[in-house]
Amino acid sequence: MSIVNFSTRQRRSFFLPSSPPGAVAAVEWRPCELRFLDQTRLPAEVAFVAARSYREVADAIRRLAVRGAPLIGIAAAYALALAAHDPGADLRAAADELIATRPTAVNLRWAVERCLRVAGEPRVRAEARAGIVEREAVAIHEEQIAADRRMGELGAALIPAGATVLTHCNTGALATGGIGTALGVIKTAHRQGKGIDVLVDETRPLLQGARLTAWELGREGIPYRVIVDAAAAGLIARGDVQAVVVGADRIAANGDVANKVGTYGLALAAAAHGVPFYVVAPDSTVDLDTADGAAIPIERRDADEVLAFGGAHTAVAGTGALNPAFDLTPARYVTAIVTERAVLRPPFVAALSSSARQAVLR
Amino acid sequence: MSIVNFSTRQRRSFFLPSSPPGAVAAVEWRPCELRFLDQTRLPAEVAFVAARSYREVADAIRRLAVRGAPLIGIAAAYALALAAHDPGADLRAAADELIATRPTAVNLRWAVERCLRVAGEPRVRAEARAGIVEREAVAIHEEQIAADRRMGELGAALIPAGATVLTHCNTGALATGGIGTALGVIKTAHRQGKGIDVLVDETRPLLQGARLTAWELGREGIPYRVIVDAAAAGLIARGDVQAVVVGADRIAANGDVANKVGTYGLALAAAAHGVPFYVVAPDSTVDLDTADGAAIPIERRDADEVLAFGGAHTAVAGTGALNPAFDLTPARYVTAIVTERAVLRPPFVAALSSSARQAVLR
Repeated sequence: MSIVNFSTRQRRSFFLPSSPPGAVAAVEWRPCELRFLDQTRLPAEVAFVAARSYREVADAIRRLAVRGAPLIGIAAAYALALAAHDPGADLRAAADELIATRPTAVNLRWAVERCLRVAGEPRVRAEARAGIVEREAVAIHEEQIAADRRMGELGAALIPAGATVLTHCNTGALATGGIGTALGVIKTAHRQGKGIDVLVDETRPLLQGARLTAWELGREGIPYRVIVDAAAAGLIARGDVQAVVVGADRIAANGDVANKVGTYGLALAAAAHGVPFYVVAPDSTVDLDTADGAAIPIERRDADEVLAFGGAHTAVAGTGALNPAFDLTPARYVTAIVTERAVLRPPFVAALSSSARQAVLR
Repeated sequence: MSIVNFSTRQRRSFFLPSSPPGAVAAVEWRPCELRFLDQTRLPAEVAFVAARSYREVADAIRRLAVRGAPLIGIAAAYALALAAHDPGADLRAAADELIATRPTAVNLRWAVERCLRVAGEPRVRAEARAGIVEREAVAIHEEQIAADRRMGELGAALIPAGATVLTHCNTGALATGGIGTALGVIKTAHRQGKGIDVLVDETRPLLQGARLTAWELGREGIPYRVIVDAAAAGLIARGDVQAVVVGADRIAANGDVANKVGTYGLALAAAAHGVPFYVVAPDSTVDLDTADGAAIPIERRDADEVLAFGGAHTAVAGTGALNPAFDLTPARYVTAIVTERAVLRPPFVAALSSSARQAVLR
């Protein structure tokens, strides 16, 4: 691999993850700097930001400039590496601050604690700590890219040729750093020549479907149309959808799924009309410490995300809003969970715990 | 009633409908002029427009400046009166043009044909025709105001004290010219001191909930919060909603309901959690000539309603959209249909045909 010059800095000699050809690098690690794509500005602008402190990354995660359950895990891991490089930073405090940015996705906590664990091992000398955390963050990123590829292959096998696939939010390169989870399945099915097309829920309030998923699908040349979220049930009822494919922010031990608000309504509509409902997420999204969906904290975000658009308020002054960012889909509505290890079928309690055992043993 | 001067014109001596105190006049008939509130500009601007030709009214209905199933019926009836006053206009052609503006709501066709029928009666002399059509339009408007009041009373009895009621789109004064259908029920329950509060679906793509329903509820002092449409199912699952109350654009003979896109998803969520799902609509919304929902035409509107917001495009250039304006809710998900005559319970085939018989006999 050739050494590429990045504004007077050089890539380290160990492997740095790079995005698949043609794909955008949602985050890119450069020594002592995390370069990320500011997703709040897409699709109007493709703007990269260089963060040199963990606090800048925490802020980017909070304001959804970096988003998507796997990607915020990766970004937070890199942020911890930035903290480790800073002699003035307290690693545990940085980890806590990063974990607190978003409460629902479990990948964030998982990635941060994994980095913290290697940093805290007794054999680690203080001067080697930063490099160790950095390598662990790179490994998490690298594993996600590989996991995406595997989920793509396993999931694509579930998609019939010629299908119209409905998806929600953004679960692509912008959400994982790889090809994506649910969107990775769609991309893989497309590359296999299955002739699929995609209905994209716009995904209010922040329009990750209309802004981000449409952008990714357009770049890949995959046929798609955007719909308002509320149109999905009626289109499923008409027989216009052959599969619903979504990601997850956390999967409980019993298979209950926390995902972007609106997922549960899709699951109800799919179930009412016998359309398969697939959840695609890496092992790191499975939280065996959470017994069921009721125990998953659901983040409530600012009312202005609902009430304002491009700076303009849509409702009359004085209007309030409720803004849960996620909802819970009970396991009974999930046809299968696709991880990088297997296509898991109900009963999920057994399937998930056995898959997790394999993950520990690998 | 005192004679009120309207920019050199005077009210005719027969009764002209006036809005309830404090309510906005979504349409107001003045001799040879229909004054309407341009609802596309709410809540930023309260702007009235005076239409003097039926074509201006047809255009207002097409672009949703005047909207809501009962109100477009009333506006179209007045538009036909404008056509009848114009010696150059062909009444049948005007009627056809008005009916074609929006295919799903049946009130439009019903109101226009009712006016056309009285105009065509053999005893009507040519010079009296315009006055006759005008009186019929006024009668339709007046009947809607009375029907709203009655639906409000019948429906409010179904709402438990302290309930959180979820509603979709706008079904208030801006949709009917009276107090509204579903929103009339909410207003009546509030006036009865039931201490209810309201969750308002923002109702993409055109945000009739966030823009119009929030505005009406604010004027009435009724507590409310706006949510994105996709949040409704999760909130219903959490037990945060005690009743879902919606309007209708057309009710088939078997009780299937066509209403604003997103209604079906609400019905599925309500059914999944044992929350009552009420449809509130006047007799004129019931179409006994349509056997079931499959026979109701669903209007597809312009992709730009989905893809643009306040003139700015949300998705990348070249993106397409599917934009069905309505969806179908099968009768089996409807707990009760509230008309001005009664609270109808399943089986709706018998209830609706018996109610319609009474309507003919009155």
